[in-house]
Amino acid sequence: MKNAPLRGIVSYPITPFLEDGRVNLELLRELVERQVKAGVHAIAPLGSTGVLPYLTDEEREAVTETTVKQVAGRVPTLVGVSSLTTERTVHHARFAERAGATAVMIIPMSYWKLTDAEIVRHFDTVAKAISLPIALYNNPATGGIDLSPEVISKVLEIPNVTMVKESTGDVNRMHRLVQLAGESVAFYNGSNPLALAAFVAGARGWCTAAPHLIPKLNVHLYEAIERKELDLARALFYRQLPLLQFIVKHGLPRAISAGLELTGTRVGPLRAPLLPLEAPQVEELRRILVTLEVLRA
Amino acid sequence: MKNAPLRGIVSYPITPFLEDGRVNLELLRELVERQVKAGVHAIAPLGSTGVLPYLTDEEREAVTETTVKQVAGRVPTLVGVSSLTTERTVHHARFAERAGATAVMIIPMSYWKLTDAEIVRHFDTVAKAISLPIALYNNPATGGIDLSPEVISKVLEIPNVTMVKESTGDVNRMHRLVQLAGESVAFYNGSNPLALAAFVAGARGWCTAAPHLIPKLNVHLYEAIERKELDLARALFYRQLPLLQFIVKHGLPRAISAGLELTGTRVGPLRAPLLPLEAPQVEELRRILVTLEVLRA
Amino acid sequence: MKNAPLRGIVSYPITPFLEDGRVNLELLRELVERQVKAGVHAIAPLGSTGVLPYLTDEEREAVTETTVKQVAGRVPTLVGVSSLTTERTVHHARFAERAGATAVMIIPMSYWKLTDAEIVRHFDTVAKAISLPIALYNNPATGGIDLSPEVISKVLEIPNVTMVKESTGDVNRMHRLVQLAGESVAFYNGSNPLALAAFVAGARGWCTAAPHLIPKLNVHLYEAIERKELDLARALFYRQLPLLQFIVKHGLPRAISAGLELTGTRVGPLRAPLLPLEAPQVEELRRILVTLEVLRA
Amino acid sequence: MKNAPLRGIVSYPITPFLEDGRVNLELLRELVERQVKAGVHAIAPLGSTGVLPYLTDEEREAVTETTVKQVAGRVPTLVGVSSLTTERTVHHARFAERAGATAVMIIPMSYWKLTDAEIVRHFDTVAKAISLPIALYNNPATGGIDLSPEVISKVLEIPNVTMVKESTGDVNRMHRLVQLAGESVAFYNGSNPLALAAFVAGARGWCTAAPHLIPKLNVHLYEAIERKELDLARALFYRQLPLLQFIVKHGLPRAISAGLELTGTRVGPLRAPLLPLEAPQVEELRRILVTLEVLRA
Repeated sequence: MKNAPLRGIVSYPITPFLEDGRVNLELLRELVERQVKAGVHAIAPLGSTGVLPYLTDEEREAVTETTVKQVAGRVPTLVGVSSLTTERTVHHARFAERAGATAVMIIPMSYWKLTDAEIVRHFDTVAKAISLPIALYNNPATGGIDLSPEVISKVLEIPNVTMVKESTGDVNRMHRLVQLAGESVAFYNGSNPLALAAFVAGARGWCTAAPHLIPKLNVHLYEAIERKELDLARALFYRQLPLLQFIVKHGLPRAISAGLELTGTRVGPLRAPLLPLEAPQVEELRRILVTLEVLRA
Repeated sequence: MKNAPLRGIVSYPITPFLEDGRVNLELLRELVERQVKAGVHAIAPLGSTGVLPYLTDEEREAVTETTVKQVAGRVPTLVGVSSLTTERTVHHARFAERAGATAVMIIPMSYWKLTDAEIVRHFDTVAKAISLPIALYNNPATGGIDLSPEVISKVLEIPNVTMVKESTGDVNRMHRLVQLAGESVAFYNGSNPLALAAFVAGARGWCTAAPHLIPKLNVHLYEAIERKELDLARALFYRQLPLLQFIVKHGLPRAISAGLELTGTRVGPLRAPLLPLEAPQVEELRRILVTLEVLRA
Repeated sequence: MKNAPLRGIVSYPITPFLEDGRVNLELLRELVERQVKAGVHAIAPLGSTGVLPYLTDEEREAVTETTVKQVAGRVPTLVGVSSLTTERTVHHARFAERAGATAVMIIPMSYWKLTDAEIVRHFDTVAKAISLPIALYNNPATGGIDLSPEVISKVLEIPNVTMVKESTGDVNRMHRLVQLAGESVAFYNGSNPLALAAFVAGARGWCTAAPHLIPKLNVHLYEAIERKELDLARALFYRQLPLLQFIVKHGLPRAISAGLELTGTRVGPLRAPLLPLEAPQVEELRRILVTLEVLRA
Repeated sequence: MKNAPLRGIVSYPITPFLEDGRVNLELLRELVERQVKAGVHAIAPLGSTGVLPYLTDEEREAVTETTVKQVAGRVPTLVGVSSLTTERTVHHARFAERAGATAVMIIPMSYWKLTDAEIVRHFDTVAKAISLPIALYNNPATGGIDLSPEVISKVLEIPNVTMVKESTGDVNRMHRLVQLAGESVAFYNGSNPLALAAFVAGARGWCTAAPHLIPKLNVHLYEAIERKELDLARALFYRQLPLLQFIVKHGLPRAISAGLELTGTRVGPLRAPLLPLEAPQVEELRRILVTLEVLRA
């Protein structure tokens, strides 16, 4: 059995910024602390939520160090190390290893659509440069390439590629992955509205930014599944679904930042080209958070 | 609460043909009898599996009468009455009602993409012509139109449209339908590989042609869900998944006919333009049936 | 060189109906007469515009006979004979031949997606039953199957399948067809907004319902291309483009019927499930026709 | 009339690398020189062909300076300055201006899908920071966002955004752009197999990497269009089409590098994750180049 050190709610912090555009490491520490205390099962800095591709190398390193230090081993950390080139991916993977990350996550960010051979070589080169377990991340909506279950199972033959985060939002992909890679494959769901279906299909965890706003609901859903309480799990899922749909529809950094502002945490500007949600969207989010009793009416 | 008289495994018989091209009503009776005896919870003649659009009006009427008579009230019947024109749909809906069907199913078969207003008017006209409950059937892959959850929930405002069969294969559609039409909406899954995810999302039934070959496995999956035995349900699902994927990939009439031949039931020719599966596909199906212990190695 | 007896503007009449729902053969004769007199190069009854799939066998036969008789050999006729089953397609192809059609057109209407072998067999069976030249029609938006250039070029190996009508709206399909079937392949464009690009790519004709409203503009575009007057062709194309886009967007039978009403020809009801355009759409069409000087402001 | 200083064949050099991974500026100079001497009408460094997103800031600056200096005003230069963040895009746009570029090209590279407001703000910020004319570049296949004609025409309201490069490969987009932005809009085609259709639709230029291999054929096609010789243009187009299809299918940097190697120019390694074409593909390319008489049999 491969070393897949993650399960449950894998929480993705945003990268907050100061008014002058620099990363707000202090607020990052606070957000991470809140999520760990709320009971999430892992912390994953530098994901899509953390606007990884919009950060400089130095900013990425600071976020990595800050997060790993703040978590301080209470839960595992999964650090995003993706870059457009293989060389930069290796650089960041090595940095994460030295910084004490539990595992690293890599999405083969595309500009040119990569061939299967290029994808395998990319992962293989990074995998040989570190000894941490690696999670392959498939998300065509952001990364620009769609890795088929067939390619994913090929990459899984690399010894320290031990986990798969699937974000296509199609549960059939997960079925196919189980069929190809075996029932013990450690796969994680990255499409929020698929949380229930993915757990039922056998996902070990749920990668989500929702714990910024509803950590208890996220954790309770996972626990209900663990205890096989199907009716409770379904009820918890449908309860949080409107928020999950909203944050996916409007983009995680925009939506989570707006939600934090609504709940009293001053988040700074988004990094351009991103812009904050417009007023009608903020109002829609407010109503959802009132229904969830995160905000008072 | 609307009258939705179906639940569980809703079994779709093929329409078998004689060598001279006529419908083989005798074999139809036998297939229906086997499925009822195997414990399925409803019988649905004249679905896509039953090649509804390839039959003449007279053939459709004969299949309807034969099936309803053979079932003889032991389980409910859901009769497909779709036609390209509203006038012919009304005709067949009335015939099904007179023949004693429990409910009718209508897919808005398209040639010209229908507008929302046309879809609603089509259902409304049929609904007013009969008093049976109606199941709306959404399957863009065969019908050529994709009904959004929004349109479906609008059609559900018609009093005797009480059920929805969703065959897009996207569990998010079912979530959305529950959100729009309320938790009591009676929806059924028509995408075989989504059987597990759909039940967990709240589907009342699974519309499937698989009971021609593996009725027990189909029924056991439903029963495991009913008893909230999640691990068992998952195991039963993954066990039958290769067959479900195969019959969807190769087309239900072709794949089920090949499976029946392999298991010893002489089915006649398919109606042209359909052709039987080619030899390598039949061999693949044979291997799947051996693994499922439907055939001996 | 194969016998491809069509070129230029191939005009597709609607099938008009009387208030009681029967086909209005008298008005059909008048519409055909107008189009022939306006100078179109062929008449094609029972296309998508003629709501072929919504007609009974008897209605189709009456439309075929009426149109061929009215045209009276002044231009070629291309009669749609498609049906869901091969047997009915043969029936209508034979009828068209006896009625004196110049050629027949066949779209492999799908319900079940047909395999390549099924498509070839379907055309082969019909082709052997008649001696007329056959036009293969590819239009996934209405027919439900998308025939690749590879499959089309395979069907073109059948001796009396001599023409291809391509309606995907992708000029690259036409390039590919020329590459596969040779520069002498007789292909026709069925996507109105592609009229200019298709002629430039080598299309012999343009299959269109627009001559109900702007026959002169349609014919002039073709003539400008024939005379290699590229700037004039481009100007004529952009002039009529808004109308072409409108009739495609709203569906040919709905849009053409509305346009005929606006220009003073009383067309009866559409056949259900189709409904007439709504008032804002009619107003948009009116403005387009005013700009084209078909109507006065 | 806006200042759109480009027309004809806009040639996109690859960025060649040395064996040690550094950019090969000497070979870049030679490739640029060849293309200018062969008669192309503009040179566009740092496009997709030039693997812009895989270069460091320093490498991009070196490529910009080297190219502009080598061209030395003989033809206009169009320098790619896109980055994921607005801040870095401004940086590179300013650098290109100081280096003497004629114009800059910007594709809104996405990770998060950008909203319309974000796209407009992104272009507006860059446009205010420089005084050069800007070409908006739409290519969802590489950039990850698809800009609708409506958004593009909105961005064109910014005074120094004066040109549009459209690479969706759908000529209807160009029609729509002309309708929205007026017949004087300066649009350029970036989809090689659409070269003929785009010129006929009114494109001022063709952005292409093909001049690395067949500059004369590219230029002759443009000249035939300029002289309104439609039959010659069509013949020249179909002649070069197999090469255009090949380089698009296999990715411009991979395919052009392979072609250069076949024709005797030693190009170094591609930057990882990209890998060279495999042997069967190189052989296919060789055959195409033999047919085009670029190589001897």
